[in-house]
Amino acid sequence: MSNRITELFNIKYPIVQAGMVWCSGWRLASAVSNAGGLGIIGAGSMYPAVLRKHIQKCKLATERPFAVNVPLLYPDVQEIMKIIVEEKVRIVFTSAGNPATWTEYLKKNGITVAHVIANSKFALKAEACGVDAVVAEGFEAGGHNGREETTTMCLVPMICDRVKIPVIAAGGIGSGRAMLAAMALGADAVQIGSAFAVAEESSAHPNFKNSIVGAAEGDTRLRMKKLVPVRLLKNEFADAVGQAEAQGASTEVLVQLLGRARAKLGMFEGDMEQGELEIGQVSAMLDQIRPAAEILSAIWKEFLTEKERISEMRF
Amino acid sequence: MSNRITELFNIKYPIVQAGMVWCSGWRLASAVSNAGGLGIIGAGSMYPAVLRKHIQKCKLATERPFAVNVPLLYPDVQEIMKIIVEEKVRIVFTSAGNPATWTEYLKKNGITVAHVIANSKFALKAEACGVDAVVAEGFEAGGHNGREETTTMCLVPMICDRVKIPVIAAGGIGSGRAMLAAMALGADAVQIGSAFAVAEESSAHPNFKNSIVGAAEGDTRLRMKKLVPVRLLKNEFADAVGQAEAQGASTEVLVQLLGRARAKLGMFEGDMEQGELEIGQVSAMLDQIRPAAEILSAIWKEFLTEKERISEMRF
Repeated sequence: MSNRITELFNIKYPIVQAGMVWCSGWRLASAVSNAGGLGIIGAGSMYPAVLRKHIQKCKLATERPFAVNVPLLYPDVQEIMKIIVEEKVRIVFTSAGNPATWTEYLKKNGITVAHVIANSKFALKAEACGVDAVVAEGFEAGGHNGREETTTMCLVPMICDRVKIPVIAAGGIGSGRAMLAAMALGADAVQIGSAFAVAEESSAHPNFKNSIVGAAEGDTRLRMKKLVPVRLLKNEFADAVGQAEAQGASTEVLVQLLGRARAKLGMFEGDMEQGELEIGQVSAMLDQIRPAAEILSAIWKEFLTEKERISEMRF
Repeated sequence: MSNRITELFNIKYPIVQAGMVWCSGWRLASAVSNAGGLGIIGAGSMYPAVLRKHIQKCKLATERPFAVNVPLLYPDVQEIMKIIVEEKVRIVFTSAGNPATWTEYLKKNGITVAHVIANSKFALKAEACGVDAVVAEGFEAGGHNGREETTTMCLVPMICDRVKIPVIAAGGIGSGRAMLAAMALGADAVQIGSAFAVAEESSAHPNFKNSIVGAAEGDTRLRMKKLVPVRLLKNEFADAVGQAEAQGASTEVLVQLLGRARAKLGMFEGDMEQGELEIGQVSAMLDQIRPAAEILSAIWKEFLTEKERISEMRF
């Protein structure tokens, strides 16, 4: 049996692994796809030549569908799109940019397109541009985030009411319970980031995985609201940003504080104090590093159990 | 049939109307209780003598159980508690303060106690103090809010995992879909504020009700984080606070900006620009002013329909 998203992507479970900078290369994407979900290679942290290698390796590692996530503000986006078409990638998730720019090109090349949004305005725009699905990402999600601060609980039903295309819920989803909640809100599938960032196959530095597993409630905050809002794990860098912001720091000061390559420094190279650590609120509930297939199967199992519990509720 | 919360409060539906300053007097509370939910009189905006009258009128207006919400930092809390016992109120919701201070007194007087929390630490503390249930309130909720900024989607499953007593989910819940999502996350019931603030029986000023009904996505923000975080509807006052905060305003400046009686000025007296308008993110989905019984019944109907839809999902 199936739904609109499992049919659209030709996958077994309506579970999408988020394309995440420095975490989701071919190993994680192919592991999730082999387990029956949709794995995504995150192009946001890859030079074009590196991305090509990841796509090629992913094709060798799985016969199942997988996708590439492309932040549209990425400087090399033209080169990236060329590689995606040349390498015959079948599904692309676009984010952080205007869906009008690339959707037609991708669709003309027979590629299924989903676009990440955080408000109705962009959901409607993405639908009008011809994307096949939208990812509705709430305030609790890790990494870059919407300015409206609308949470998953409020965003998903609004988006479901406003578009006809399938909606993939993202933000705060790391368990079968949360997946069921997202489906109750009207989503056709879920996109899961943080819970897969700690997968064995994630390319995140072991220090970062351990920090995520050790994270407690309130350890992430939305920062850099004057630049592009981003949810960060508490560390020396995030605290410095928080203090600067509390004192009214200008965008210039924040740009300087951020510097260059901090996400790589933290998430890939393992500097837990000076690096930029992008992760969601759900990190507070994550407590082990294990294979992606185990993570997916635990979520699916809990989803089915909780669905049964809800079905049996009588009033 | 029933669950832990309907049994605890002796109500028909696991729907609690939030105690809200300037909105929930005896008219709203009795209307919700008569409709089969749990109505709550919000003592936070009442002088003790006013509260006593509301309790007395509520007892005349309904034979069903109702509750009083008491913010524990309220200056007249001692007098309030005395009145609650004298008037034989059976259920009290405490918030904004230490559950250790009053729970024993209330329990000794045979009163059922629920305490509002926004993190695990206080949930565990409330449970240890002997409260009968906790309200887990997420970041998207209107009015005063937790410092951790944990959303309902992330907070509710965490709290359900950590306490044994029933959990009432709050924040972002104004529809049957959201209610089902909260139950999927493990809650035993929901507490609904914003959707009842626009009830005909709500004592909110008509201007405020119209502003809520007209609110769009992103029109609320969590402000006053250096004092006590509070979610406010966008207006001249909220924008002034936002600008001051962006420039690093000190707590002293914020206290001065806030001044006195701004919540009354906005929510009760109808000054939509200079008043403090406390409302949740879910206001973006509210579009009509109607009787509380209709609001409750629409939520319940949608809850049952969506529960059926989820039950029939097959993979």
